[in-house]
Amino acid sequence: MRLALQEARRGEGRTSPNPCVGAVITKGGRIISKGYHKKAGTPHAEVNAIRAAKESLNGTTMYVTLEPCSHKGRTGPCAEAIVENHIARVVIGMEDPNPLVHGKGIDFLRRNGVEVVTDICSDECREINKPFIKYISSGLPLIIMKGGVSLDGRLNYQKGHGGWITGRETRGAVHAIRNRIDAILVGRGTIEIDDPSLTTRITGEKGRDPVRIILDTNLQTSPDAKVYNLQSPAKTWIFCSDTLSKEKKDKFRKSNVVVKPVACRGDSIDLLEVVKLLGREGDICSVLVEGGARIHGAFLREKLFDSVNLFIAPVFAGENGIALTEGYNTENRDTAVKLCNLSYKRYGNDIMIAGDVVYPE
Amino acid sequence: MRLALQEARRGEGRTSPNPCVGAVITKGGRIISKGYHKKAGTPHAEVNAIRAAKESLNGTTMYVTLEPCSHKGRTGPCAEAIVENHIARVVIGMEDPNPLVHGKGIDFLRRNGVEVVTDICSDECREINKPFIKYISSGLPLIIMKGGVSLDGRLNYQKGHGGWITGRETRGAVHAIRNRIDAILVGRGTIEIDDPSLTTRITGEKGRDPVRIILDTNLQTSPDAKVYNLQSPAKTWIFCSDTLSKEKKDKFRKSNVVVKPVACRGDSIDLLEVVKLLGREGDICSVLVEGGARIHGAFLREKLFDSVNLFIAPVFAGENGIALTEGYNTENRDTAVKLCNLSYKRYGNDIMIAGDVVYPE
Repeated sequence: MRLALQEARRGEGRTSPNPCVGAVITKGGRIISKGYHKKAGTPHAEVNAIRAAKESLNGTTMYVTLEPCSHKGRTGPCAEAIVENHIARVVIGMEDPNPLVHGKGIDFLRRNGVEVVTDICSDECREINKPFIKYISSGLPLIIMKGGVSLDGRLNYQKGHGGWITGRETRGAVHAIRNRIDAILVGRGTIEIDDPSLTTRITGEKGRDPVRIILDTNLQTSPDAKVYNLQSPAKTWIFCSDTLSKEKKDKFRKSNVVVKPVACRGDSIDLLEVVKLLGREGDICSVLVEGGARIHGAFLREKLFDSVNLFIAPVFAGENGIALTEGYNTENRDTAVKLCNLSYKRYGNDIMIAGDVVYPE
Repeated sequence: MRLALQEARRGEGRTSPNPCVGAVITKGGRIISKGYHKKAGTPHAEVNAIRAAKESLNGTTMYVTLEPCSHKGRTGPCAEAIVENHIARVVIGMEDPNPLVHGKGIDFLRRNGVEVVTDICSDECREINKPFIKYISSGLPLIIMKGGVSLDGRLNYQKGHGGWITGRETRGAVHAIRNRIDAILVGRGTIEIDDPSLTTRITGEKGRDPVRIILDTNLQTSPDAKVYNLQSPAKTWIFCSDTLSKEKKDKFRKSNVVVKPVACRGDSIDLLEVVKLLGREGDICSVLVEGGARIHGAFLREKLFDSVNLFIAPVFAGENGIALTEGYNTENRDTAVKLCNLSYKRYGNDIMIAGDVVYPE
């Protein structure tokens, strides 16, 4: 199953709105073939593993990270292929959280005489498909906060100025995360101050650019900003108020840019609407929210974050730097947003604190 | 030498203004006796180890974490005792940083036919005597920042209110640190908001209270605050402006409280004066600065911190909480105060970042 998980991870960030899945076929302890799901619309992991085999599959065991499908989507049902190829035993990491499939694949296999074992390494299998599980059960993408702060919780040294807080190793880690998620989201301020390109840059490996999402209620960013003028296979979406004039919006209509007007609540775009739209129209299962402070504060306030990756650098930035969040307040420990399922990892001199978000009841 | 270090640690926080030192005597790989320095004015580790031996020390080896002294202080020189007892070989962790002793003990031993090996586990030996090394070379105590903050760098949830940010395990760690240092320092705000007792409370072990130091320029705290009315073997010192009236100061003259008027710079007490006084009059080699924000900011600004123990809790406190530092600013990465020699340790759900402070040039 570890090997199947390894296979599954090769598809991470490439399979949305499908899950990433890996499969390994063995006979008497010997590995016959492996396969993983590469992209929505292409064959599933099970079929790829079956096709890769160079000998008869009669009496073999398949290890697969997710329950094989029994419904006919864009590709054929995998459970049928397993039965047709006389695979004797299927070891499954986790059941499919998709209500169209849940348990039906397992039933089909058992009815057709295949021995089925479930819930093997299910925690790990769930972990790699956190975005898919959220998406398939709610229609919303998994929303991850990413921040880089000083010991005193500042995003920079002086309000309105850029300047890295975290180190080189952290930047490498952030690009590795970008490579695994479907979209990056930032606010107007980040574009105005940092003018980032928001692409994935990984040394020695071909990175895949996520969709770039800019929240700019009144379209105040410059159409000349890097993010609107990139050569990138991924598009840039700007979300703005649905009350703006056509001329204003037309300035941003470029080959690679999509302008998405949405309703406002008060002075700002309705974030829940944005998130729903990303799931519904974009097939986006995971969004990395990279700030700035107002965006982080608004997502916390609206209880939209699912998890957090916070990088802390061993430096004191001082009180003129912008705090991690703006517009988010809490009275005491009981009403504060917390993290659970914590993990810590060191990147150079920085430390990453990662966890799932727990909102007060 | 590991065993000698273990012995030395038994004296940590008890020996100021002396270093903590451990000694072990062996013969043919067998341990004959051990000893450590318990308290200034009592015998040194070497003499304790010699006295503890139940057989002749002729031809034995002594492992000692610090160079034996050759000068006559309140207790006799250890180097002489080693020679008199015919110890054949002395393995030394580090040379004494005290200019009165540096190298002279080693010279004396060698001149008297004792074989000497130096710099064994010297990093560890230096580590346990960081306060002594700073004190003996500068006359100033080692100043350690201690803070407990949220992910967004806040000391509490609402300005002017208490309320724990960090968890139970961190509080245990803080009491263990208090047990190893000579003094705790806090500002007026901490007394007014939290009314702490600033004692050492360790479960299952007898803690030793450090000296409590309160900075209160205009003596605005209440004489009824806990810290001025404790049953504790350690005293509470209040530092205030030297321009205050006698009546004002007299309110704080209680059995266990010392009022220390010092010169001001601008509106605040001159921190360097405070620190010098602690070394000169208090024989204090280490001070744990526990805040609040203004105190942390002032010590950072004055470049007085030597090291930092920052505990970070996985909670977002929000922008109404007080930031870790107040009154400290920096322009960019080059001018910011940083940490080096980093270490990380988890306490429950919190993580401690510890390091030595590096000031910009």
